[in-house]
Amino acid sequence: MEFRLDPWSSQLVVEYDKLFKYFGIRPFKEVLPELERIVKPHHLMRRGVIFGHRDFERVLQALRSGEGFAILTGLMPSGHMHFGHKMVIDQVIYYQGLGAEIFIAIADVEAYAVRRLSRRDVIRYAKEYVANYLALGLRRERLHIYFQSNYRVEYYRLMQLLSRRVTSAELKDIYGDVEPGKVMSIFAQMADILHPQLPSFGSHRVVLVPVGADQDPHLRLARDLADRYSAEFKSLGLGGLERPASTYHRFMSGLTGGKMSSSKPESYIALTDDPDVAAAKLMRALTGGRPTAAEQRRLGGEPEKCPVYEMLSYHLVPDDEELKRIYLRCRGGEMLCGECKREAAERLRRFLQEHQRRLERARDIVDSVVDVPDF
Amino acid sequence: MEFRLDPWSSQLVVEYDKLFKYFGIRPFKEVLPELERIVKPHHLMRRGVIFGHRDFERVLQALRSGEGFAILTGLMPSGHMHFGHKMVIDQVIYYQGLGAEIFIAIADVEAYAVRRLSRRDVIRYAKEYVANYLALGLRRERLHIYFQSNYRVEYYRLMQLLSRRVTSAELKDIYGDVEPGKVMSIFAQMADILHPQLPSFGSHRVVLVPVGADQDPHLRLARDLADRYSAEFKSLGLGGLERPASTYHRFMSGLTGGKMSSSKPESYIALTDDPDVAAAKLMRALTGGRPTAAEQRRLGGEPEKCPVYEMLSYHLVPDDEELKRIYLRCRGGEMLCGECKREAAERLRRFLQEHQRRLERARDIVDSVVDVPDF
Repeated sequence: MEFRLDPWSSQLVVEYDKLFKYFGIRPFKEVLPELERIVKPHHLMRRGVIFGHRDFERVLQALRSGEGFAILTGLMPSGHMHFGHKMVIDQVIYYQGLGAEIFIAIADVEAYAVRRLSRRDVIRYAKEYVANYLALGLRRERLHIYFQSNYRVEYYRLMQLLSRRVTSAELKDIYGDVEPGKVMSIFAQMADILHPQLPSFGSHRVVLVPVGADQDPHLRLARDLADRYSAEFKSLGLGGLERPASTYHRFMSGLTGGKMSSSKPESYIALTDDPDVAAAKLMRALTGGRPTAAEQRRLGGEPEKCPVYEMLSYHLVPDDEELKRIYLRCRGGEMLCGECKREAAERLRRFLQEHQRRLERARDIVDSVVDVPDF
Repeated sequence: MEFRLDPWSSQLVVEYDKLFKYFGIRPFKEVLPELERIVKPHHLMRRGVIFGHRDFERVLQALRSGEGFAILTGLMPSGHMHFGHKMVIDQVIYYQGLGAEIFIAIADVEAYAVRRLSRRDVIRYAKEYVANYLALGLRRERLHIYFQSNYRVEYYRLMQLLSRRVTSAELKDIYGDVEPGKVMSIFAQMADILHPQLPSFGSHRVVLVPVGADQDPHLRLARDLADRYSAEFKSLGLGGLERPASTYHRFMSGLTGGKMSSSKPESYIALTDDPDVAAAKLMRALTGGRPTAAEQRRLGGEPEKCPVYEMLSYHLVPDDEELKRIYLRCRGGEMLCGECKREAAERLRRFLQEHQRRLERARDIVDSVVDVPDF
């Protein structure tokens, strides 16, 4: 595979580069060739959307040896699931296909205590997320989806024990805010990341946490905690703790430019949006087009700056060759934004129609996949 | 009952009076006559050791109506159980005799995270406490003894949810220290106090928490939280939250004067101390005696200042008339400290011999009374 799309080659790489420089995150492209020798990489890896990692070599090693590994991810049930959220679960489904055991934490405590939603809304959003995950292809085998407020006792014990070797000064450094609700959800997150290593959850020593770049502080703290507790956990007969591995993906841009934000419905497309409404939203999106059609024919468009191209690259065009053709037609000035948007909107409409058909069936089995708390 | 012993009539009442004045704790003697009309008060009540309360009227009402009530108490497994710790469980056993449902929290997380004991020591001390409780007469019926790290999921949900309506400024005001381990155990304590009101724990609306005077900050916060969450919990179908009731007892003095302290073995007698060693320790104790025998015969002793008299009054002389005779013989200068100590030491030796016989049997059933965590 020689053709690699890197939609943010100029503007944003600098910022992400800081993660390499200051925090020791390694470029994902360093491990990509070795991954390719074992399995086909996910399109988000092939396209440079997953751009960084820590200790992914341990996953490679697990894939080679067949020893197995676990994936830990979380979801925040504070609003409707949109395409920005879809990236993580796409990766999870990919790893599930490679044989990983899957742990998915529903951050209902943070949604309630920090984001201050009602319990009813939190539970409703959480169930919608889970239905979406299933509709997207998440399978029930070797799958543990749990509410942070409704899990097994060893998880809570871990959460409590981890509070011993952390100071409030440290939390303030990492998170700024140390209000009690935040402290509680930080320790829930630490337990999320580390608990698959406990014997009662499978003693998974290789745990990969795929996250957006902003989530690295959690990973850094979790890695520190693994170091701080490993010897003690070994002496307690729990087999020690290894540092979690992680990958980092870029964020999607908002359709209207800037960040995709749950508080700006025009900036995102939810997986439950009406397909026609979603298509219309995409038609109104900002693009990487030039001020005039003539200029665009002459200079070509800028897919690197285009939220519509992002939707295609991240979500709507699985085939690399097909995406390449779209990229080159835009860059070459052959295809203008109107045509591109109409095609993208049509792809989006079809995707959502099909997804929402699956979603209807998925809703019926949510309660059998996740233990929903009664308050 | 007209004769009321109040061993701290002069020196310490002033300090305890602050609790009445500034924190709204009411004198227990205000509710004692009404309690006497219903049942025989505990000797710690009759003797003024339990000196204050909040909302004890609700317990009286529950006793009158027969609607039932719950007791919540906690133990800190950070050392051997001594006579200072015995006061709370004596009260619990009394209330169990009156039909109360009993909840006992083992603060293993605080012992581990804040007091920094090893998990093994924490678990060992906790089991010793529970064995002592059973040997003292705690019955297994309607009894819930639990490790904070090993309880039911609704308890942990409550603990997490309660973090929403508390600020770190507030915790700092109340507790001074807001290190993560402390924050975690504060919320565990809040869940301890409030969880008997949840439907899955019996929907107990009258929950009494008997504590030492230093524990009132927990009660004040728990009462505030009951107010803050009651409407929401009602709307969640949980039936609201009532403020917990509480009683306050005086501390035992150390045998060597000053405070009884787990870090000074000469200051306390553990329930597992060898009876002869314990008796010898008592013989070395400070007393309320005068500088010379002649002076003491003339002026009388001062039982109000005497740690040995405290042992008699709190623990070793259940009969009020018998205690009164000892008190009067001391005050009248008829009995000097040597004689009194020998008698007290003999009572102590007999008590410990009998207790430790029961303790051997109790140790065998600890694991069937409390679910001990495996790490």
